[in-house]
Amino acid sequence: QSNVNVYGLVDMNIGVIDNAGADKGNTLRINSGGMNTSRLGFVGSEDLGGGLKALFQLEMGIAADTGVADTPLFKRQATVGLEGRWGTVLLGRAFTTVYDFVLPYDPMGYAPQYSWAPAGNASGASKYGMAFAFDNLVKYQGKMGNLSYGASYGAGEGSSSGDGAKGAVAVNYMAGPWSAMAAYERINGVPEAATGTRGDTTAWHLGAMYSAGTVKLQAAMRDYRQEAAGTPDVRARLYWAGTNVMVTPAVTLAGVVYYQDVRHGAAEADPVMVVGRVRYALSRRTDLYVTAAIAKAKHGLLVGLARDEAGFGSRQKSVLAGIQHRF
Amino acid sequence: QSNVNVYGLVDMNIGVIDNAGADKGNTLRINSGGMNTSRLGFVGSEDLGGGLKALFQLEMGIAADTGVADTPLFKRQATVGLEGRWGTVLLGRAFTTVYDFVLPYDPMGYAPQYSWAPAGNASGASKYGMAFAFDNLVKYQGKMGNLSYGASYGAGEGSSSGDGAKGAVAVNYMAGPWSAMAAYERINGVPEAATGTRGDTTAWHLGAMYSAGTVKLQAAMRDYRQEAAGTPDVRARLYWAGTNVMVTPAVTLAGVVYYQDVRHGAAEADPVMVVGRVRYALSRRTDLYVTAAIAKAKHGLLVGLARDEAGFGSRQKSVLAGIQHRF
Amino acid sequence: QSNVNVYGLVDMNIGVIDNAGADKGNTLRINSGGMNTSRLGFVGSEDLGGGLKALFQLEMGIAADTGVADTPLFKRQATVGLEGRWGTVLLGRAFTTVYDFVLPYDPMGYAPQYSWAPAGNASGASKYGMAFAFDNLVKYQGKMGNLSYGASYGAGEGSSSGDGAKGAVAVNYMAGPWSAMAAYERINGVPEAATGTRGDTTAWHLGAMYSAGTVKLQAAMRDYRQEAAGTPDVRARLYWAGTNVMVTPAVTLAGVVYYQDVRHGAAEADPVMVVGRVRYALSRRTDLYVTAAIAKAKHGLLVGLARDEAGFGSRQKSVLAGIQHRF
Repeated sequence: QSNVNVYGLVDMNIGVIDNAGADKGNTLRINSGGMNTSRLGFVGSEDLGGGLKALFQLEMGIAADTGVADTPLFKRQATVGLEGRWGTVLLGRAFTTVYDFVLPYDPMGYAPQYSWAPAGNASGASKYGMAFAFDNLVKYQGKMGNLSYGASYGAGEGSSSGDGAKGAVAVNYMAGPWSAMAAYERINGVPEAATGTRGDTTAWHLGAMYSAGTVKLQAAMRDYRQEAAGTPDVRARLYWAGTNVMVTPAVTLAGVVYYQDVRHGAAEADPVMVVGRVRYALSRRTDLYVTAAIAKAKHGLLVGLARDEAGFGSRQKSVLAGIQHRF
Repeated sequence: QSNVNVYGLVDMNIGVIDNAGADKGNTLRINSGGMNTSRLGFVGSEDLGGGLKALFQLEMGIAADTGVADTPLFKRQATVGLEGRWGTVLLGRAFTTVYDFVLPYDPMGYAPQYSWAPAGNASGASKYGMAFAFDNLVKYQGKMGNLSYGASYGAGEGSSSGDGAKGAVAVNYMAGPWSAMAAYERINGVPEAATGTRGDTTAWHLGAMYSAGTVKLQAAMRDYRQEAAGTPDVRARLYWAGTNVMVTPAVTLAGVVYYQDVRHGAAEADPVMVVGRVRYALSRRTDLYVTAAIAKAKHGLLVGLARDEAGFGSRQKSVLAGIQHRF
Repeated sequence: QSNVNVYGLVDMNIGVIDNAGADKGNTLRINSGGMNTSRLGFVGSEDLGGGLKALFQLEMGIAADTGVADTPLFKRQATVGLEGRWGTVLLGRAFTTVYDFVLPYDPMGYAPQYSWAPAGNASGASKYGMAFAFDNLVKYQGKMGNLSYGASYGAGEGSSSGDGAKGAVAVNYMAGPWSAMAAYERINGVPEAATGTRGDTTAWHLGAMYSAGTVKLQAAMRDYRQEAAGTPDVRARLYWAGTNVMVTPAVTLAGVVYYQDVRHGAAEADPVMVVGRVRYALSRRTDLYVTAAIAKAKHGLLVGLARDEAGFGSRQKSVLAGIQHRF
């Protein structure tokens, strides 16, 4: 018999969005991934005795509106590892420690529609975002009482071990209804042929959460810095604060403000996004939801709600209604 | 535990076909998808109480003769939805309502080897076919006594909601051993830069079926029209008639004639295909089959048996023997 | 309920390798597939009565270090077939009979890190290797007492049935602790436009094995020949000999020497590889392992350990430690 659990979710919605093209009209869209990226996965574990477990996970992302891959094959997760009293070690391709630790501090839970916590929306080359996942990864996660901690390393696989190497560390502490998180990551570039120097991208995250009964309050920030020889530094800080309130056992409200403080250049876009969502649970596995969001940028610069799409105006708003089913 | 059912089929055969290349020789081929496209899927439902159910389905097509994807990832089906007494609503990527309603009227059940019901075979740009599936789809299907009805909408996602939009509607009525079906679809193009006008493709289907005991008789037609500014209209009518006869509980015969009446141009190919198949059921999940087919075109124009392959002569014939296993 | 078994393995390791790039430094790598290629598959069978069974299998290869496909979709296996007292017949895409029969004679079991049994490592166009799998395949395998035999045919699907056709045959005989194997394959090219002649590649394999209690001794050779009009023949012989020793129920040692005798050209690389591995079984499904390997070529020619990677020096060595979990 099989030792595998097949799991996933399909999340689809119908929405209206403005400024989604060059002519800036309203557009009706049928989208995949309102609350979470649609996905399919295969996961399992084996008890090895003495508190030791073997683990594996394979997970793909799906753009259910067109049926194609959201990310190639198992680029969301492809890992094998061991879990013991000392923690968990995974090898393969996986989300980073920073991605894992910051997630609970985002009231939208990294929703594709819409959250800027994993990456902002900006019209230039940079999205001022965190690294979602590392290739060639070793990841450790442990726990001691109320303290959780972890680290991820992604090998650069160049002949100098620092070139292209990636690292992420994070800690989380809980004290009664309060939690706090700090996370740091550094992504090394590879040396440029001309100068022999390499740039890097670093990001700090700090977060705080209050969770009591049916109310959760979350706030966090990211300090982002990108340095490369011969080009001006890219710097930005993202701040967000929001809440999740369970109004009834079936109805949950979420609301957040994200503010991207761009800290380089002359006329900065400094975009703001406000997102609200009502979620109605038909069961523990099936939800209906309505999400509304608006984003604005300064100085007539372009902005978009989705972290993966270019903006066509200095303002964008959207309303959508959808369904998510987990299996 | 898992709430997912993993299902699929692998269908492979060995066949000989003539006129399959420029030198018009006979070719031995080992093919995937004689009776049905090989596939793998993940499907599930959840009872939400009060007659309501949540549904999801992910299905990929497989070219088992080479092991690659027949269609990228889950482009056959990637849906989530709800089912109630009022019918079923699905969101995602899926076969259209017309595809679903015409299927039972094709004695070959859209067999890749060989049916022209979903699309004809023609050497030009048009296959005079139906839309198989829509991206960005909303699909409804309902039932009232002996009447079934449905509609599909595929959002164009342009800033004018009509550009690139797709629609399909169909009804089916049963009265004792008789059934009748009518189906309509319209696929809007996008405006051409030069003229600002957009073309569209429309198709009507009508069908009738008599089903009693071990015999089924099916006949149907498609009226196809493609219009675009600055080019002559493309018009064609496809007619087919055929039968399925269960000779013994294990042996089923199928036979059909497809006739494509091209209704534009001077010398029209007007191709005809005759297909016959013997199916021997080893079990409810495993079949052996032998299929023979011949196609002819007029005026020395080219024709092929398979709807996806170019022809190299004005005649083509093939015999093949295969196995299909469903899981 | 489902008739499918979902299975697979994830195999990841951390290693150091030298001469892995133009600057010949040591490189830290996190790799997928140390002992076996990471994979996910779907397999099932149906009892048809009278000793007859229907079979299917779909299997993909995974590069778990990056999460992408190692081979497109189900290019490892995509088959349907029947099994009876007379043997097994499969249709689809699958490993060849030669691949299946030679496998038990390789002490490293075709390990990506490292075995040259399926293909050698050479810096030129040829890897002097076997065909791993055939598209458009019919494969038969049978058994009579201690004699196993099989044949694979991969249709060329050209209008001359010989063009591009592929064939493989093999036999294996067991007598007490001894086994012997002989295998032959031939891969036809397609005719060149200029000359109308086609080349072909042939390979003979011979192997012997002694297996008693906790010790297995394996030796085999391949005679490889590639002929094409207008170019000199490519000829090489690969020899290998090695052992698997179960030191304790949990600890297995493996060691092999591969020697590639290049038999054309003036200064021949004639590379040698020595590989050793310690495997520690945490359970029947989970192993830890340490592998060390060194390869050398003559005349300053380039060589690499991995059969799929170019070499950057006339010597390469590597040590790696990993985990494999099967599900």
